[in-house]
Formats: sequence, structure tokens, C-alpha cells
Amino acid sequence: MDARHAILFEPVRIGPKTLPNRFYQVPHASGFGSGKPRTQAAFRAVKAEGGWGGVCVEYAPISPDSDDLPAISAEIWDDLDARALGLAAEAIHEHGSLAGLELYHGGASCPNGNSRAVRLAPSQITSGVQWAGLAKEMDTTDIARIQRDWVQAARRARDVGFDIVYVYGAHGYLMTQFLSAHANQRTDGYGGSLANRGRFWLETLAAVRDAIGGDCAIATRIAVHGDSGVPGAEGLPGIHLDDMLTLVKMADDLVDLWDVTVGSWPEDSGTSRYFPEGHERRWAHQVREATAKPVVAVGRYSSPDLMAEVIRSGAVDLIGSARQAIADPFLPRKIAEGRLDEIRECTGSNVCILREEAFNHVGCVQNATAGEEYRRGWHPESFRAAADPDRPVLIVGAGPAGTECAVVLGKRGFTAVHLVEAEPEIGGRLRWARQLPTLGDWGRIIDWRAVQLARQPGVEVITGHRLTAADVLEYGAELVVIATGSAWRGDGIQPSYADPMPGAEPSMPHVLTPEQVCTGKRPPGPRVMVYDTDGYYVAPGIAELLARDGFEVSVITTFDVLSPVSDQTLEGDMLRAHLHRAGVSVRPATTITGIGIGSVTGHGRHGEPWSAACDGIVLVTQQVPQDTLYTELASHQPTLVTAGITGLYHIGDAVAPRMISEAIFDGHRLAREIDLEDPAQPAPYRRERVDLR
Amino acid sequence: MDARHAILFEPVRIGPKTLPNRFYQVPHASGFGSGKPRTQAAFRAVKAEGGWGGVCVEYAPISPDSDDLPAISAEIWDDLDARALGLAAEAIHEHGSLAGLELYHGGASCPNGNSRAVRLAPSQITSGVQWAGLAKEMDTTDIARIQRDWVQAARRARDVGFDIVYVYGAHGYLMTQFLSAHANQRTDGYGGSLANRGRFWLETLAAVRDAIGGDCAIATRIAVHGDSGVPGAEGLPGIHLDDMLTLVKMADDLVDLWDVTVGSWPEDSGTSRYFPEGHERRWAHQVREATAKPVVAVGRYSSPDLMAEVIRSGAVDLIGSARQAIADPFLPRKIAEGRLDEIRECTGSNVCILREEAFNHVGCVQNATAGEEYRRGWHPESFRAAADPDRPVLIVGAGPAGTECAVVLGKRGFTAVHLVEAEPEIGGRLRWARQLPTLGDWGRIIDWRAVQLARQPGVEVITGHRLTAADVLEYGAELVVIATGSAWRGDGIQPSYADPMPGAEPSMPHVLTPEQVCTGKRPPGPRVMVYDTDGYYVAPGIAELLARDGFEVSVITTFDVLSPVSDQTLEGDMLRAHLHRAGVSVRPATTITGIGIGSVTGHGRHGEPWSAACDGIVLVTQQVPQDTLYTELASHQPTLVTAGITGLYHIGDAVAPRMISEAIFDGHRLAREIDLEDPAQPAPYRRERVDLR
Repeated sequence: MDARHAILFEPVRIGPKTLPNRFYQVPHASGFGSGKPRTQAAFRAVKAEGGWGGVCVEYAPISPDSDDLPAISAEIWDDLDARALGLAAEAIHEHGSLAGLELYHGGASCPNGNSRAVRLAPSQITSGVQWAGLAKEMDTTDIARIQRDWVQAARRARDVGFDIVYVYGAHGYLMTQFLSAHANQRTDGYGGSLANRGRFWLETLAAVRDAIGGDCAIATRIAVHGDSGVPGAEGLPGIHLDDMLTLVKMADDLVDLWDVTVGSWPEDSGTSRYFPEGHERRWAHQVREATAKPVVAVGRYSSPDLMAEVIRSGAVDLIGSARQAIADPFLPRKIAEGRLDEIRECTGSNVCILREEAFNHVGCVQNATAGEEYRRGWHPESFRAAADPDRPVLIVGAGPAGTECAVVLGKRGFTAVHLVEAEPEIGGRLRWARQLPTLGDWGRIIDWRAVQLARQPGVEVITGHRLTAADVLEYGAELVVIATGSAWRGDGIQPSYADPMPGAEPSMPHVLTPEQVCTGKRPPGPRVMVYDTDGYYVAPGIAELLARDGFEVSVITTFDVLSPVSDQTLEGDMLRAHLHRAGVSVRPATTITGIGIGSVTGHGRHGEPWSAACDGIVLVTQQVPQDTLYTELASHQPTLVTAGITGLYHIGDAVAPRMISEAIFDGHRLAREIDLEDPAQPAPYRRERVDLR
Repeated sequence: MDARHAILFEPVRIGPKTLPNRFYQVPHASGFGSGKPRTQAAFRAVKAEGGWGGVCVEYAPISPDSDDLPAISAEIWDDLDARALGLAAEAIHEHGSLAGLELYHGGASCPNGNSRAVRLAPSQITSGVQWAGLAKEMDTTDIARIQRDWVQAARRARDVGFDIVYVYGAHGYLMTQFLSAHANQRTDGYGGSLANRGRFWLETLAAVRDAIGGDCAIATRIAVHGDSGVPGAEGLPGIHLDDMLTLVKMADDLVDLWDVTVGSWPEDSGTSRYFPEGHERRWAHQVREATAKPVVAVGRYSSPDLMAEVIRSGAVDLIGSARQAIADPFLPRKIAEGRLDEIRECTGSNVCILREEAFNHVGCVQNATAGEEYRRGWHPESFRAAADPDRPVLIVGAGPAGTECAVVLGKRGFTAVHLVEAEPEIGGRLRWARQLPTLGDWGRIIDWRAVQLARQPGVEVITGHRLTAADVLEYGAELVVIATGSAWRGDGIQPSYADPMPGAEPSMPHVLTPEQVCTGKRPPGPRVMVYDTDGYYVAPGIAELLARDGFEVSVITTFDVLSPVSDQTLEGDMLRAHLHRAGVSVRPATTITGIGIGSVTGHGRHGEPWSAACDGIVLVTQQVPQDTLYTELASHQPTLVTAGITGLYHIGDAVAPRMISEAIFDGHRLAREIDLEDPAQPAPYRRERVDLR
């Protein structure tokens, strides 16, 4: 270990417990909750194994009036729920780490759609994010009951082995609703002055401490005013940093660990597009100066030097992590062992959050094993040795899927893997995507794989070599994997239209594909349209690139807003504001059906005709797989046999253009399962099912 | 039974099975899937008990590449899934009905977000509703495998007792994708001519028939071109009625029951707003003329005369129902027993679908017990006798919550329930809401309760009598339930703003509340704005009402589209088109912050200032509970004791303004639980949990 990093491995006392080091996986959603207890346990255990001294499960609603379905949470409504969650505590303990559970009540933020319980809040408010239904103003009976529920949940958490128990305050949930002078309009002892607005929180902390403070560390999560100035995802204004620091002082005796979030959720879990590593630091520092207790804050930290520096600077006591711990559960161990270039750095793309926001299993673009520990039995650092490692393997295409497949085959001990790329560099679509404005950190996907590929003795990377079907047949490989990716179509075909768009001809100067723009093609005049039916990062990226170059850019999109997918990565509002500031205009709910010289035509939501003048148009309509090589090979099975090829597979966008995370998953899966009976088809995975007794 | 209805009770032979009558609950989603098998079983069993001769479970994905999560489906991927679903078949059989299971593959429509399997389709298409990811073009191996999966799932369904097994074709799913000349661009034997495009479907039918045709009836669900001209929710054009009729003839030997859906899903499950009862009939009739096998189609039928007439006309053989069977599981029995005015008619508001689309337990505005059969042990027609029936009960307010509470108390045998309403008529907010254009059928909520109230000997309804707190204290009631509802606020307070809006003063002629509009107030000039931060039915209803009266109406809304909630009731696109035709303009993503004489001011998405001229504005911002009476009573517990009031409760919008379905649920729940220890707090309900062994 580098001596500079030794500070990261100092134990830290929190209340009656001691964290073995300063690496702390903060509570974060996973899609497993208490409904998939073994999946949850395996997901968290691998982080403890990787060296995170504190590992928390996610937010845990304490009662049916904090029902957050369809979002998946760790409901702890009764003893059976607690038993399910206890599996995680047990699994975390096996690796010597402390286990935390984030007890939670969402107040007005809970939809309660499944439980059908009335929503509760300090006053009759809607949260900013939910239509159709106001909350009930809590009476003193409600207040007392929720505090009892909190204590009961805390006892249950302790009884099943959790070491750290939260009173969750941040993110616009019930505690913050009480604290907000906006949300809390009460005139009783729980409203008015800061002391009154903080009373519910402090009373709850005191009650939980009374009940379990001797056995467990009490943590609380707070939101402080960040650059976005909005503490909480729910858009609750009204809590200034000074107020929060006052509350910290008031509550300091009741708390063993302050877990500090900064600004809104989109800021605190800020993507690499808009926030640098450690941007929360200066806010956390101010909290630490107000408290005598340890402080943890996240920061998408992946640099050990920066982590050590942040600790030394006194900004925080613990390095909090959610996304980086997903991307590399073994980060602490790698630092401890000085294997710094093995660290799989988080790209900050928030695909993990996108998946969780869509109520799916968590996933990660960097770490294909995230969330697959139990159901597929995958481990991020261990790989089953190949059954027949000397079979020669040819992988054609070194984009996300191809490089991932090669790395995993290498780690499984294959001795003769050739990864052949037509372009002069590996990277596939990331070669151009990482050059779009704000997307630089996405390049970590390829950078990490480049290092790994260089370390696999059994893998040879050959670039600048385009293989034909004949070349593949003659290559001498037994297993052939086609990973030739996808390209943006230039014919204007879009989801709702079967036919090519008249005038969509990228050989003309005024019609462009995203790749053409990235490799330097520019429209012949100043007014350019970006037509987006894709809905994610490409259209905004191209629009910003062209705006920077001085073009007058407008995005025309069939969606109701620009880049709806970015809402699920928490980037939507920022992205729209960012492009607005960059001078990009947006026309939603519009379909383009034809391109002329100097203008485009189409229609609005109700079919009303629309046309506008422009000098050029970039078509971000749909991708098309580059699968000619695969199709050609697959169509002649006997030829394959003659050539000695026993397995021909295709992966990633060459099969079907998808998100980069799914392409990498695809390559990873094939490499894990390539010696099963039918590797083309994913092996069945384990599902946790309802008790039928 | 009325002799005219006898035809509805004739048995119908389908393949090797015989339906005991013509009432058929078609497959429909519930939110239970195979993950909540006991909840599923109880939900379906009550329909069998109520007389539906055929009762189906919902769509059942046959393999992990048809993973529809987060939408809840009846996954039947293996034997354990089948065992779980078998509980429903068993429960349905106990009442002498046949049980059906709708085997399904969604093809390109499946997100596969949880399984991470590649999406499959006949050709490389996106579906119209999904961004970010194309499907894989199925090769012949995929085709053969899915057919094998279908057969295996069919065997499993048979083995656990299902009588009717579907090959699900409608709604834009895999079969329809093959059939669509748009989606299917294959050049092999599965693409091109209609015979080729139908081959996958027919082969699958044949294979399933070979495997289980001797034991089970084979049903298939088809979509025929309706008024919307779009067969399938996924926006797949390309299948004309003539093609579908040709397919019916081609497949007729393989099918025992044709389940006909009409047009797009929003048309087939058309709301009462835009579609009359039985609007599918003429399309189903054409299918029936093309087949020798029985035909079922839905039609939101609640009129026994119309049902009998439709059968006699030869349009269908079975009365299909999803929504009406949710609203009244006992409809067939009530017809059989001549209790026609007891039928709880579906309102056609699609709240059931809204709940299911939000991935929640199914629910129903008319039937509060829907989905609660297992977890709360509620039965739509049986009520536990009151422990102490002679306690006098006073309910103040005869809106949805109050009337429901009174009806249930009456059915529980309470002998002295007074339901006192200040207005001259019962109905609460429905008194005005049912008068909004297209919402007439929502009045069924109150109409049914009015009949029921009249039948309860223990319930007395008193209208036109406004009670003060003093009146309540003197009333002589032991139990008091406040159900005084809510009103739209006129001060312009909206979700994101704490303060009243300058100029929002409904005593002025140019500022209006929805209630004022419904009771006749009109703006002083022709240009009127409806400001909507609510997002559901009120703003569009008011806008249409005013447009009909000749005003120039524009809706200004903070949402990205008009009435986003209506997308979840399947009405969104129709509603927007309807209002567009009515001349209503819409300005999305705009916040109003001030009202002047002759103009309003506000800002756009990025804070850019905006203002516009208008002669009047209707504020649909937020509701406020009318809870003064409750608050006054609750604030003096000793006075209650002195008055002999042992329980004071509030329900419905008086607690927190919500959807009507939730207000009714609230009233129902209190009445069911009013003799438990703490009736104010919902009793815990049973949850199906993962096996922890």
C-alpha cells in the first residue's frame, strides 16, 4: 500500500461500534429491498468482502403509510421483514464489516399506492413530484405513532444484527418536510421556529437512542444546501445551510454519525456530465465543523489520492460511496494492495439509478456483475476456470461488448483469445461518444478494459484489421464472437415509420449522422436541426457540440420533452437548462417526415402540418446493427464446421443496439457461460419466490 | 330471473370443455401475477363465486425474454411458477367455473429490463412506446425455441389445472408483430405474404394443440381493426380487418375460442368518456361470421338487456368482461336472481388500469374490495356483523366516502346510522363532476349508493341540513364520522409555491374556481385560461365545458403535456385530440405566478418570463379539505366524552383530497374496521413474502 493512503485504513469509532476503516457504502437503493433478501445479502456482502468497512442496506420504510411501491424498498413493517433483512447483516458481518439500515418515512413523498394508506405530512402539502393527492396534516396521534413505529423498527433492526441504524432525514422525506418552513406550516410545537420544526426529528432520534443507543450506532442523513440550493429530491425549498448547521448542533448528542447529502438528489448523485469528483466536499466540511461526531459524505470518489486528501483536509471522516462501490466493490482492497490501476472507476453516468428508477435490478455499466451476485452467482473478481482453456477464440470488434468478453475470457484462463478491431483504436461507439461535450468520463469504460486486456496473457488485441467472412473462416478459431456494434441510420427510419424519410441522404452535405458530426462533418449553413427520436444522450450531445461550434441549433423531438431518458439518470432538468443556456432551442412533440434543401417538413402532436427552414439536419432516429459479418457466417453452418468453428455467437449492439451497460452485460454473460451447453441462450437464473407452504 | 336473460345462462362448449354460462372474465392484469399467488387466487375466485362461468388469470410470460417488469405479470417460466398460478385454477374450480391462463410473449414490447435478455422481434424494430433499444431479429433457432417454450408453458398450465390455455396474439405483442407487414420485414418463410406472416402464430397454435388440445380448450386473442384503426397498444400499423379475418379462417381448426379485441388498447378498454357500452360489437360480429368457433369480446357491458341482445344478434357467443367483473364480481348471480338494480355498474373511468399501470394492486372506484380479497379478507357481498350494532352513528357528508361508509355500516347491521348532508342532494364532488362533458357515467358511483342507502333499514339519509360542531355534539351519536370533502382552492396556491398567488381572488369576476364554473359563473370576456397543476380530469373538463359555451379556451399547465394522469387511464392521446378538435389550445411547461385584470404573468421551463392576455382564469391548482368541523370537534376531547361520543373519525377528502376511488376505499375501510381497537389506523394486512427457508 502507498503510505499516502494509510489514513484511509484507520478505524473510526461511531457510538458503541468501530468501523474497521474509512470506506463506507452509504445506503442506496438496489431494486432488492426486503422482497429479495438473498439477492440483497449477496449484493451487499461482496462490498464487505471488497473492503468497505461499513456497508448499508437501502431505505427501509417503517410502516405501511410509508409505502413507496413501485419503487423497491427494504420494508421493515414487521418481524418477518426484519428476518429477511437480517440475511444482509449476517452476510456483511462474515467479512468483518459493520452493517447499516436506513429507517425511513417518506411522508408526503410516499405514493402509498399499494397500501392505500393516507399520505402523511406536517402540513397539507403536495410534494413537487406527485400529482393527484394531498397529504393529511399529521395530528399529534400520528406523530406519536410514527415515532413508536420508528423505535419498533430500530429494535427489529438491532435484533437481526444491524450495527448502524438510521433516522433518515435527507432527500425531502418526512424529517425534512418537518424542517422546511415551506412544507411545515404548523402552528403547534412542531412548527414555526427552527427549534419547533426540528422537534419531530430530535424527538425521534432521542427515542431511537433510548431504545437501542447502547447497542447500535445512530446515524442520521441530512441534506444541506448545495449549489442547486434545493435540499431534497422533492423540491422542498426553505432550509438554509445555517439552519441545518444549527440543527446539527442541537442534535449532536443524539447522533453517532452524520451522513451528509448535498443539494438536491440530482446534485448529490451528480453525474460526471455536470459535477466533478468530490463536489460535495465544501458543504460537508461546514457540517463537520459544526459537529463533534464523525461525518460521511459521498463524492463519486475513485481517486485514492483525493480520498486521502479529503480526509486529511478535515472535510469528512469517512469516504461515502454508492456508485463507486457498485462499479468496484473491491476498491478498498485494491488500494490496500497498491493495485491502483485495477480500480474500475465509476463513469458517473447514473445507469445504476436509471435501472433502479425503472424498478429493475440495479446494474452498472462498468461492473456487469452488480446485482447478479445471487441470481447468477457472479463475483466481480472471481471467475470460474475455463473447462477447455486452449480452444482458440476470435472476437471481432473491440467496443464495449467485445472488450468485456475478451477480458472475462482472459480471466477465466483462456489462452488464445484474439480480439480483432477494424479501426485503429479499440472503443467502438465510445471512441466518438466520449468526445461529446460533458461525456469524457464515459471513456473510463474503455480505459479500464484497455488496462485489463494488456494484463491477460491469453488475450491478444489486434487493431486496424478488418476481417471478412473468409478471413474469419480461415482464422483458425474454434469459437467466434461477433461484436461489430451498430451505427446510426442515415435513412431517417424512426420508431413509428416503416419507410425511409424522403430526402434523408447522408451523402448530401445537409444531412448528417451523429458519427459524421463526431468525425468532423458540419452543415453547410448556420441553422441546424437535430432530430431526436432516440431520447437519450446523443441528440443533446450533438446539439451542444454544434452550438459550441457557433451553429444555431434546435432539437426537434417526437418526445414531450428533450431527452426523457435523462430524467431517469437525474440529469433531465440540468440537461435542459444546460442546453437552454447554450442557446439550443427545443421543439417537442413534433415528427419530421421529409427533408428538403433548406427546410424540413413534418407534423405536430395532432397531425397539424409543420415545416421550418434549416441549413442542415442531424438524424438521431435509430441505430442499426452492423451484423453483415455475423449474418454471412451464420448462413452457412456447413462452412463453419469445415472451418473447425464449433461455436459462432454475436453480442452487444451487433445483435440489437442497446444501452452500453447492456452491451457490456451481453459480452460478460457470454464469456461466463461460453462453455455451457447452449451459450447463445442465457442460463436460467435463480429467483426468490413466495413461500407456497 | 327475467326470461329475456335466460340466454345468458346457456352453457357453451369450447373444445373439450364446457363453460357453464356465457359470462366470461377475459384475461386482464391485476398487479398480482405469479408473485402474489394467494392474492391472485382470491381475486379470481370471487368472480367464479359471483357466477362468471369462465375466469382467466392475466398474461403469463413464457420465458425470461418476455420479462415485462416492472409491470406485474403471471410469469410461468418454470414448474414453481406454475404451482403458484395453480392456486388460482383450484380456487376458480371450487365454484364450478373454468379457469384460463393467457400464455404470452411480448417480443419487442417487453422491456426485459430485469432479466436483461435481448428483446426479440420478427425484424429489427422498436416498438412505438419504448426508447433506448432495438430488438433482435429472431433467427429460426429463436422461433423454434419460443414455440417449444410455449408448449412447455401450456403443459405446465394444464398440469396445474387450467382448462383454457391461450396463445396470446393481440395488443401488438409477438404474434401481432409477426402478422404486421410493418413490423415483420422478413424475407424467409415467416415474412412477406399474409400466410407467411401468420405462420409463426399458426405453428404455435398447432404445437400447443398437439400437446394439450385433448385436455384443454385453446383460446387465442386477436386484435381487429377498430375505429382507431390501430390493432395493439404498441402502435403497430399494418393489419387490416380483412387480413385478420383471413387469418381466422386459416387458424379456425386450431382454435376453440376466439377472444377478440378491437382497435388499440385505449379503444378496446375505452373509457365511458369516449366510447359507449358495446362499441366493439360490430367488429366482433365480423369475426364471428368468419369462424365456426365461439367468439368472446368485451364491451364494458353492464346492461343485462344489452348483453342478451348482443348474444341474440350473433355478434358474440360470450360476454367478455374485465372492468365490469372488477366493479361487480356478482353481476351474473344478480342477473340470475333478478336483482338488477343491485348491479354495481362500471363507471368506465379506468382507475383499475391506472392503478395497474402504476404497478399497484388493482383497485376499483365502484368496488372497494377489488384486490383486497386476500390481503384484507374483504368480500364484495359479505360483511361481518357489527359487534355492537345499536351504537348510533352520525356521518356528516354524503359524498363518495360518506355514502360508502354508510352503506357498509348498514350492511354490517348497524341499526342507527344517520347520514347528514348539507346540500339538497347527496353526491359530494360528483354532483358537479358528473356534469362535466363526457363524465356522465361517473355518476354511477352515487346512483348505485343511492339505491343501496335506500335499502338499508338502519341508515337514514338527511339532506339539506348543515351541522355545526354544536349540532354534532348534541346529535346523540356515539360514533361520528366526518366526510365533508374538499374544495378547489381559489388562492392560487400550487404544489411548488408556498404563497398565495397575487391576484387570485375568486370573488372577482375574472378569477374562477372549478366549482364556480360548474355552478354557472362565467368569465367576463371571451378569452379564458384554465390553469392546471392538478394533471387529471378537472382542467380538461372545465376547458371543454367553456369551449362548448363559445369561449376561447387555453389550458396553461406546469406539466409537459395536458393531463398526464390521463395517460394512465389510456385516455391521454384521445383526450388531447378531443380538446384540440374542440378548439382548446395548450401551453405546457408553464407556471403562472400572478393574475392581473386582463392578463396573467408567469414563466416557462427555464424561468423565462411569460405573460398573456385573457379575460378570465380558472384555477385548477390544488384542493383543500373542508375539515373545519372535524378540527373543531377533535380539538376538545373532553367535550366529546361529555357528549357521549366514543369515536370521532374523518374519511375521504376531508382528511386529504385524493382520487375518488381512494375516498371510497377510505369510507369502506373505516366501516369494515370501525369496531377494531383503533379504527382510525388501518389494520395490518397480509402480505405474501419470500420463502426464507
